[in-house]
Amino acid sequence: MDLISIDDLTDEQVERILESAELWLEDNRSSAEHRRPHEDKVIFNLFYENSTRTLMSFATAAHRLGAAVVTLPVEQSSVKKGEALEDTARTLGAMRPDVLIIRHPENGAASEVAEIVDAPVINAGDGTNEHPTQALLDAATIRHKVGEVAGLKVAICGDIKHSRVARSNGKLLPRLGAEVRFAGPPELMPDWVSPMSVDEAIAGADVVMMLRVQRERLESELGDAPGEYLQRYGLTADRLAQAAPSALVMHPGPMNRGIEIDSAIADDAARSLITLQVEMGVATRMACLELVLDA
Amino acid sequence: MDLISIDDLTDEQVERILESAELWLEDNRSSAEHRRPHEDKVIFNLFYENSTRTLMSFATAAHRLGAAVVTLPVEQSSVKKGEALEDTARTLGAMRPDVLIIRHPENGAASEVAEIVDAPVINAGDGTNEHPTQALLDAATIRHKVGEVAGLKVAICGDIKHSRVARSNGKLLPRLGAEVRFAGPPELMPDWVSPMSVDEAIAGADVVMMLRVQRERLESELGDAPGEYLQRYGLTADRLAQAAPSALVMHPGPMNRGIEIDSAIADDAARSLITLQVEMGVATRMACLELVLDA
Amino acid sequence: MDLISIDDLTDEQVERILESAELWLEDNRSSAEHRRPHEDKVIFNLFYENSTRTLMSFATAAHRLGAAVVTLPVEQSSVKKGEALEDTARTLGAMRPDVLIIRHPENGAASEVAEIVDAPVINAGDGTNEHPTQALLDAATIRHKVGEVAGLKVAICGDIKHSRVARSNGKLLPRLGAEVRFAGPPELMPDWVSPMSVDEAIAGADVVMMLRVQRERLESELGDAPGEYLQRYGLTADRLAQAAPSALVMHPGPMNRGIEIDSAIADDAARSLITLQVEMGVATRMACLELVLDA
Repeated sequence: MDLISIDDLTDEQVERILESAELWLEDNRSSAEHRRPHEDKVIFNLFYENSTRTLMSFATAAHRLGAAVVTLPVEQSSVKKGEALEDTARTLGAMRPDVLIIRHPENGAASEVAEIVDAPVINAGDGTNEHPTQALLDAATIRHKVGEVAGLKVAICGDIKHSRVARSNGKLLPRLGAEVRFAGPPELMPDWVSPMSVDEAIAGADVVMMLRVQRERLESELGDAPGEYLQRYGLTADRLAQAAPSALVMHPGPMNRGIEIDSAIADDAARSLITLQVEMGVATRMACLELVLDA
Repeated sequence: MDLISIDDLTDEQVERILESAELWLEDNRSSAEHRRPHEDKVIFNLFYENSTRTLMSFATAAHRLGAAVVTLPVEQSSVKKGEALEDTARTLGAMRPDVLIIRHPENGAASEVAEIVDAPVINAGDGTNEHPTQALLDAATIRHKVGEVAGLKVAICGDIKHSRVARSNGKLLPRLGAEVRFAGPPELMPDWVSPMSVDEAIAGADVVMMLRVQRERLESELGDAPGEYLQRYGLTADRLAQAAPSALVMHPGPMNRGIEIDSAIADDAARSLITLQVEMGVATRMACLELVLDA
Repeated sequence: MDLISIDDLTDEQVERILESAELWLEDNRSSAEHRRPHEDKVIFNLFYENSTRTLMSFATAAHRLGAAVVTLPVEQSSVKKGEALEDTARTLGAMRPDVLIIRHPENGAASEVAEIVDAPVINAGDGTNEHPTQALLDAATIRHKVGEVAGLKVAICGDIKHSRVARSNGKLLPRLGAEVRFAGPPELMPDWVSPMSVDEAIAGADVVMMLRVQRERLESELGDAPGEYLQRYGLTADRLAQAAPSALVMHPGPMNRGIEIDSAIADDAARSLITLQVEMGVATRMACLELVLDA
């Protein structure tokens, strides 16, 4: 099976991933010898966008399962010389990897590759479409901390329009019973959300998830100074005070401190789940790899 | 032992590689747990030319054998700062890899490195000299499809002069009993071949192997428009119709569709072996690694 | 435990590393199946400076122990986009590597990362501060060749001021009982050494360790032509003749032949330990990794 979209997963599969992620989190923290159930597997990483943390997260997850990882250096490849994605997919598929992980700047690229490649394909982000493993790790993080996702109010704030994280979370969290509110600069809200101000979204929220704003967008589309963005749309102490008592704070990273999030809030160990998200990222990707490998 | 040239291999060793490649092909396709006979080995990849597919093919082959792979990032290395190849070879050899795989733009570079390094060296392409694993995978591919190489007429068409693929195949295929015909633009024919037109070469051929033409060469030396190259020297449906009935089509990739090969022919599942070549590439490199590791 | 500075090691730990390095050297040379005591480990390489040989040496050492390696491509990472080192460290630490190896152009960077990351951190060179594994491999190399470090006179010559190799050796070798003399161009001598001319330092020395001079520094600060540097401060046959009979020659590499060292001396198999240093580098890093993993 492929994991291109949250829609690809049955409720049972979502549940299996979240439970398995929790177990891997414990296993990774343990000092006992780690289990490596997939030592004979070879996993390809095909990243058409630079993303240190996602690339390393997937590589670490694969290695923790015992698998080998081959990373395509897209910057140096014939891909750069204009080879069509289809031809690249056909070539890499013919090398018979056990899983192919792809990140690509265009919507639908992961799906296109999955149609060509026999091996399971995992979408590590395609354009502004989806980033399913991020939504799954977010859900696993919330569940680890709170116990349950159902019944929570989750505010997702920032550049919703260009965020595959928002889109995948917008599919997954409601399925798990959360109420999701989207907010951000009006220019950066897509068709599919009901507009809401950041203050409204955060009011009474149990979880506040801030998204990274691209500095280029800040200047060209919003005409804002960094500090002005924080005051108008970012997570400040004042705004967080309007959320539920001891509301939790999330961010997929990398953060722009002082732009979309106040730096002290990001580092508040009692409320910030940001580091836990990274840790759960490895565990969740192990669970996702296992799911597609065992399917 | 080193594998620098097809000439380094005895007939028995060629036979062993081709048989072993066939077995690995089956093993790689199987869903059973893969054998990994070389788990304690560390293999170095030293690529002085960008080549995604060959680099990934060797890395995948090494991992499928259970070995670890260390890739020298030539672009970022002291090599770039002008360290002599000899010093690099001496340094890398002193790290005691179990095999060193090298690709280099200069003829004889692999041989120079092999003289310095104790470990077995495999030539993954040196200048316009040789690319022995490509010729071996081509032979293994033909054998897988046809049963035998002996007695076949193989036309190799394109930029023969600058092609190490043509040169290694020109050594290997005749040893296996094939008749090899070389053809291409007169400017791109080397001394060591008997000139022939592309039409003559393809007439009655059982296998037509098209080589990649470099676009830069196309313009500077040939003065041709891409489409004109296809008509004059490329593999068109009309030309393929002159080959033997159900003649097979090969290309070492990456292809320039519409330049050296008609796009529909490249995708014709009944005749094109191009994807099988990639798959057999991993299997053949496993066989080559095993040969030098066991020698 | 972390290995940021030679000062972090007790005498017992130094002894353990040197003994273990000697054993791994033998093991790596053996054709028997290699032991791999840390197959379930994942090691991160975080190199903020290009360094092919150190990166490959650590990667090879990790693989020889059976561990997996994840290398952060700093050039392509968010790090480049200005993410603070602290945030990068927090993120990578959260992925729970078993060891994190860091090279960084700033003094104290490894120490800063070690404070944040739970996993053991090994300093692979921080600015002009320390490079402890290089000093350890140098000591292990001398010991392998001579039997003992105690009582030897070691001349370290070149750009002492900017050399973390000199600094770490200046801490380690005296602890092992050697007399260390530092010499080089007056402009390149730091506060912490007693100035000495290169001729004085080499006179009667048992070991002469030459450091790489940066060509940029040669021109901008020293105003010397390459050949002039060799005559004034480099290791020539005349100078080496003033050392102890059969004095040994070392260099951390990569060498500038004909600048800091005469090319024939570098290649003199009877006296040059330069290649052995590289080989011992892998063995010593295996010993260091084992130490921090077992601590």
